[in-house]
Amino acid sequence: MSTEAATAAARRSKITPERETELYDAVLRLLREGGYDSVTMEGVAARTKCGKATLYRQWGTKPQLVTAALAQRRCVVFAGIDTGTLAGDLREAARIAASHRERDAELMEAVAQAFIQHPDLRAALRETVIAPEVAALDAVLARAVERGELDADNPAIGFVAPCFMGMLRIERLFEERFADASTMRTFVDAVLLPALRVEG
Amino acid sequence: MSTEAATAAARRSKITPERETELYDAVLRLLREGGYDSVTMEGVAARTKCGKATLYRQWGTKPQLVTAALAQRRCVVFAGIDTGTLAGDLREAARIAASHRERDAELMEAVAQAFIQHPDLRAALRETVIAPEVAALDAVLARAVERGELDADNPAIGFVAPCFMGMLRIERLFEERFADASTMRTFVDAVLLPALRVEG
Repeated sequence: MSTEAATAAARRSKITPERETELYDAVLRLLREGGYDSVTMEGVAARTKCGKATLYRQWGTKPQLVTAALAQRRCVVFAGIDTGTLAGDLREAARIAASHRERDAELMEAVAQAFIQHPDLRAALRETVIAPEVAALDAVLARAVERGELDADNPAIGFVAPCFMGMLRIERLFEERFADASTMRTFVDAVLLPALRVEG
Repeated sequence: MSTEAATAAARRSKITPERETELYDAVLRLLREGGYDSVTMEGVAARTKCGKATLYRQWGTKPQLVTAALAQRRCVVFAGIDTGTLAGDLREAARIAASHRERDAELMEAVAQAFIQHPDLRAALRETVIAPEVAALDAVLARAVERGELDADNPAIGFVAPCFMGMLRIERLFEERFADASTMRTFVDAVLLPALRVEG
C-alpha cells in the first residue's frame, strides 16, 4: 500500500479488513523484534502511517491492540485434531505443538514475557490464546470418552491440558531440551496414556 | 550494623559472612520489590553503604551478584524428602512445592521474569536453582528403584521433574488454580503414580 493510500485509509473512521491485518502485522513484528515493551501506540502509528487517534479510538489501549493482533493471527494449533483414537490424537498434538514452537519462537517468547510481566494482559491472553487450546484438547478427550476408549471419571483428564502446556513452558528451564517433537511424543506415551489408562 | 561499621566493612577487601548476607538480603529485597530490572549495582551499593568498586571486584557483574544471592538464600525445597515410599515422597514434594510458592511468591515471580528476560542469567539459574531440585527428585526416584517399588526402565521416570516444574510454572496460565496443595496432590495421584506404575 502506498503512503498516500495508507494515509487515506487511516483517515477513514471505518478500518478495512486489509488495513486491520496490516496494523496487526506491524504489532506482531514489533513484538517479535523487541518484545512487548517495544510495542507502543506511537511506534505502530509510525510504521503503518496510521493516526494515533485512530488506534486509540479503535482499540482503546495497547494491551487491547496486542491481544486483538494475537487473536486474529493465531490459529488454534490443537483445533481439528481427529485421528480416530486418543493415542493418535495426543501424539498428533505433541507433533503440532513442537513444530509450532519452532516456527514462531520469537513471537512465543514475546508473548510469554508479556504474560508474566503484565497482569493487565493476562485475562485477555487467557481468553484469546489459552482457552481455545484447552477447549481443543478437551474436545479430543470428550471424543475418546464417547468412543468408550476413556473412562469419563478418570482423574487424569483434567491434567492433560495443563501437563501439555507445562511441558512446553519448562523447555527453557532444562536447556530447551524438552519440547522437541520426539520428547513430546515420548511424554504422551510414557506419562499421559498410562495416566489415562489408555493403551497406545 | 552502623554506617561507620558498614563503610569500614566495605573497605575491607575480604568481606565477612555477615556482611555478605546483608548484601545478599539487599539484592533479594530489591528483586522482590521491583523485579530484576530494579536491581542495580548502584542501588545495592546505596542500600548497603557498600562501595560500588567492592561489589564489582567481588561479584563481577549483576547477573553473578543476583545468582550468588539466590544460591545462598535458597534451600533446596525437595531435599531431604524420605517418607519410605515413592507415593509418600511425591505427595510430600507436592505439599512442599505448594507451600513454598505461597511463602515467597514475589521472589519466585521476580526470578521467573529474570529467567525469561535475561539469557545471561539462565545458565547460572539452571545451575543454582533448578539442577539441585531436579537432583533431589531424582534421588527420590532412585531410592524407589532400590527398594524395588519402581522399574528402573520405566520411561516416565525422566518426566517426573519436568512435569512437576511444568505444573508449577503454568499456574498463572490457568488463573493460578493449579499449584495449590490439593491440586498438586491430585496431580501426583492421578498422573505421576499411574505413569510410574506405582500404587498409591
